[in-house]
Amino acid sequence: MSSEAKCSKPACDKFVAINELAKRRGFFWPSFEIYGGSGGFVTYGPLGTRLKQNIEAKLRELFVKKIGIYEMESSVIAPGKVFEASGHVDHFKEPMVECQNCHGRFRADHLLEEKGISAAEAEKMSLEKTGQELERHGVVCPDCGGKFNPPTRYLTMFETTIGPYQGSVGYGRPEAAQNIFVEFNRLYTTARERLPFGCLQIGHALRNEISPRQGLIRLREFTIADLEFFFDPEEPTCDKLKEVEDEVLPILLCETRLKECQDTTELTVREALDRKVILSEWQAYFMAMAKRLLIELGVPASKQRFLEKLTWEKAHYSSQSFDQEVLVDRWGWVEVSGHAYRTDYDLACHMKASGVDMTVYKEYPNPIESEELTVKPNMAKLGPVYKGEAAKVAALLAKAPAQEVADAMQKQGSYIVDKYEIKADQVDIRTQKTLVRGKRFVPHVVEPSFGSDRLFYVALEYAYGIKDDRVVMSFPRSIAPIQVGVYPLMSKDGLDVKAKEVQSMLACEGFMTEFDETGSIGRRYARADEAGVQLGITIDYDTLKDSTVTIRDRDSWQQVRTPIKDLPKLLHQFFEGKLNFPQLGIIIET
Amino acid sequence: MSSEAKCSKPACDKFVAINELAKRRGFFWPSFEIYGGSGGFVTYGPLGTRLKQNIEAKLRELFVKKIGIYEMESSVIAPGKVFEASGHVDHFKEPMVECQNCHGRFRADHLLEEKGISAAEAEKMSLEKTGQELERHGVVCPDCGGKFNPPTRYLTMFETTIGPYQGSVGYGRPEAAQNIFVEFNRLYTTARERLPFGCLQIGHALRNEISPRQGLIRLREFTIADLEFFFDPEEPTCDKLKEVEDEVLPILLCETRLKECQDTTELTVREALDRKVILSEWQAYFMAMAKRLLIELGVPASKQRFLEKLTWEKAHYSSQSFDQEVLVDRWGWVEVSGHAYRTDYDLACHMKASGVDMTVYKEYPNPIESEELTVKPNMAKLGPVYKGEAAKVAALLAKAPAQEVADAMQKQGSYIVDKYEIKADQVDIRTQKTLVRGKRFVPHVVEPSFGSDRLFYVALEYAYGIKDDRVVMSFPRSIAPIQVGVYPLMSKDGLDVKAKEVQSMLACEGFMTEFDETGSIGRRYARADEAGVQLGITIDYDTLKDSTVTIRDRDSWQQVRTPIKDLPKLLHQFFEGKLNFPQLGIIIET
Repeated sequence: MSSEAKCSKPACDKFVAINELAKRRGFFWPSFEIYGGSGGFVTYGPLGTRLKQNIEAKLRELFVKKIGIYEMESSVIAPGKVFEASGHVDHFKEPMVECQNCHGRFRADHLLEEKGISAAEAEKMSLEKTGQELERHGVVCPDCGGKFNPPTRYLTMFETTIGPYQGSVGYGRPEAAQNIFVEFNRLYTTARERLPFGCLQIGHALRNEISPRQGLIRLREFTIADLEFFFDPEEPTCDKLKEVEDEVLPILLCETRLKECQDTTELTVREALDRKVILSEWQAYFMAMAKRLLIELGVPASKQRFLEKLTWEKAHYSSQSFDQEVLVDRWGWVEVSGHAYRTDYDLACHMKASGVDMTVYKEYPNPIESEELTVKPNMAKLGPVYKGEAAKVAALLAKAPAQEVADAMQKQGSYIVDKYEIKADQVDIRTQKTLVRGKRFVPHVVEPSFGSDRLFYVALEYAYGIKDDRVVMSFPRSIAPIQVGVYPLMSKDGLDVKAKEVQSMLACEGFMTEFDETGSIGRRYARADEAGVQLGITIDYDTLKDSTVTIRDRDSWQQVRTPIKDLPKLLHQFFEGKLNFPQLGIIIET
Repeated sequence: MSSEAKCSKPACDKFVAINELAKRRGFFWPSFEIYGGSGGFVTYGPLGTRLKQNIEAKLRELFVKKIGIYEMESSVIAPGKVFEASGHVDHFKEPMVECQNCHGRFRADHLLEEKGISAAEAEKMSLEKTGQELERHGVVCPDCGGKFNPPTRYLTMFETTIGPYQGSVGYGRPEAAQNIFVEFNRLYTTARERLPFGCLQIGHALRNEISPRQGLIRLREFTIADLEFFFDPEEPTCDKLKEVEDEVLPILLCETRLKECQDTTELTVREALDRKVILSEWQAYFMAMAKRLLIELGVPASKQRFLEKLTWEKAHYSSQSFDQEVLVDRWGWVEVSGHAYRTDYDLACHMKASGVDMTVYKEYPNPIESEELTVKPNMAKLGPVYKGEAAKVAALLAKAPAQEVADAMQKQGSYIVDKYEIKADQVDIRTQKTLVRGKRFVPHVVEPSFGSDRLFYVALEYAYGIKDDRVVMSFPRSIAPIQVGVYPLMSKDGLDVKAKEVQSMLACEGFMTEFDETGSIGRRYARADEAGVQLGITIDYDTLKDSTVTIRDRDSWQQVRTPIKDLPKLLHQFFEGKLNFPQLGIIIET
């Protein structure tokens, strides 16, 4: 598709155009409309479900199939303990104000943003400061003009009760990551007790937003793809780095942001690591992979950037964080994935809260010789002096720090324990050599975390284009929701029967197909372009004679003629990216 | 795999063996073990997630790809109104008793089942009767021996609050079906306003069981695959029936069950419809498809049956229901899918509750001529008689039922409306012809509903076998969690490098692969058999010379030798079922 065709109609922005198209054609729409809707919930229709699954399949292809990351599936609801331990019950809160008059409730930081205070600024404010700023800017209730009560912090997790007992608190998970951490020991067994390994979970997650907005961008129920990669912090080398080291990452650095500047710094992965802009090799690796993923979803590199998070913007668990952002028409730069170096924070929290050991054992390549100072009571000398109390004194000495005893003997010639003064000859102080064969430690974690709904939205926006005054959804062919449309020229004379045969044959070959026999071929092509159907196969009167069909390409509108018997092989190769469209048959001049 | 190999060790049943294997190899395990567990939640590990996804892909292949059923994805949490309208808030309850002493809570019907009362019997009891039966059998608290309070009904939905307001009740969906019903209008638009069409939703669902049990069989959070098929009850013909009409369905009929007999009646789909054992052609079609699905998952026809539900066993929305059951080692017959004829119950409920029209319009092929009786006041006669009241009388007549007026005139020669006696000559009574071009109606629904976790469990159980004292998981090749294992004979001399190359090539071809270089080849084969890895490819010293590899089959333990360059094509054909194992190369005698 030519670049001119990419420009949208000036009358409305792409957000509006896409939402209209999405409802009409069944990509997605707000849920529960018959009951007046419920903010923050969305339904993916047939085309959208297909597209979303194809996007998630891309994630799996890149991470699970190609680099061997594990995948797991656990529950959306989890016992309260999990999110108490993880810190979410304490930290997963947003500042909220309530109107004294109509009792409407609003995100306090969002109200400040509307007064021109930056999100980053509003986010780091204390509750007190937020209240002062609201007052200073004269912010009143947007619904009734009433005054606000002082801001409070609102826990944005969905709460429920598990089982028939009051008090068995459960929460809807706000991220898929915690399931992976709490199951670490089992996953480590599955990994045959070797590091590094990663585990991905793609699934629904819940955030009980105070005021959800921005369509697919901020939902109460959404799909998250959290990948937790566990490694030994003493062996932080990424063995796949070579595959990505020349990939250029456009990063908006903290230092640039603090100068109120938006310029990105273009660094290769290698440069970013050498200059310590990115601290972990694995984190840099996943950032490069995330960039490639977005390119595969149709977002060019020039519309992507990585935002380095400021200290007060980072989640409570993160030591270094970057947001991968994509430029969208209505909202500007929008986060599509987060890259956090979570260190050992989460496993350590769960170890502490559960009392279960989640360390791993590392055997040293060569055992390390270690010297240990030992203090041994000399009973032959102690006995005569302390008599009946000798055993008690010996026990006290056994508990005394060896170094302290040794130091005291050297300085004063005696050591006082409890009320007893021990003389140098009453103890044997020695250094003993031991071989340490390994050690136990808590693995470190880097996490790339993708918002599936946001990936979906940007894929739609970058596929959206206008050609000859019509919408064409030019999805990359590997994620097109429908791969092949099959169209009989007429619904009679056996053309429809033949077309159904061809469709059925392609469906059995594993292609996602549609059948459309209504209206002129032109109308059907137009409908298909709008749905992003990659190829259209037309069955006409010649088909009945020579068993060939016309294939039409959604993007170039080119047509080729091909024998039916060659379709399976050719189409497989086309969708695997091994053939270009003109290679599918003999080009027809139209 | 030979049939002898299928018999399990007598020492423990398959449920125990599979649960042990599942934990050890990462198929699944109880969630949140580090916090002491939380009944009814399960985590699928890497192998299990793969297997579960392959099973769900089978469902999509059969229903979405091959027969064009739509798919949608919506939220697990829904506003209270949805489940009030659907009847769940009133009906989705279980009888519960609480111990007066320790306050433990238990499913009352389960306690009665332990006293030998059948589940069907216990289920249909009133609360009062349940209380009486508990007393009659002297049932006390299993934990402390305390007495019970009278039984109550407990709502087994997870409840939460949506947004920052108290009173915005939300529930975790107990089924995926309601999302489909509430979005019917949008889906109907997507279907270009034509019936019949179906829509599938596969997703997590929640039932807040009082006492979850039986491992994967009864979970609090599970995956459901609900397919709602909408059709015109006046055109109930299934156009795909021919494909399945000779499929034999083993049905345990209501009449047989009421005789306390367990014999199934074997009927073809055609016979079951002709004898009105199954009322809807579409329902019969989906039952046949469900049987085929289970066969594809490895459950032979002889281990399947359909149970016709008794009146009191049916869900509140269903006019006719069958459970598809599979025989399992520990639990006997277990439901894996339900087949309900939901009629127009759900759409009608949501229409009534929301006030939104959810009827569809059907144009008659030929407009129907309809005669309508009309009564028109004859003002020339009425005026002189009623003078100033004439207009009022005319208005009253306009509202009077035309047939009633006509009958009265014929019988008595006059009609009394209010206090006025109208004479025959004061009205013109005529029959008027109108053309009715169509009508509006609420579509009917048949629903096949699959429990994904149960499909998963039966697939595991039917794959489980012992060969030479070792476990072999003989999954059908189309659902094997890992398709190809790649094993260097030694981790040196370039064999490991070559093996990684082969694995990477196969991964890029879309195969699910694993790499294993630890231990003897025999040990690796054994580990792979236990994980259900379909094929093992070994890289040995000959590989470096002639670029051929050994392929080993999990089930027959046969081996063939094949050039690396032929692998992609051969393996694609093998996994598509187009080739058998010996066709993959030259057989090696071992």
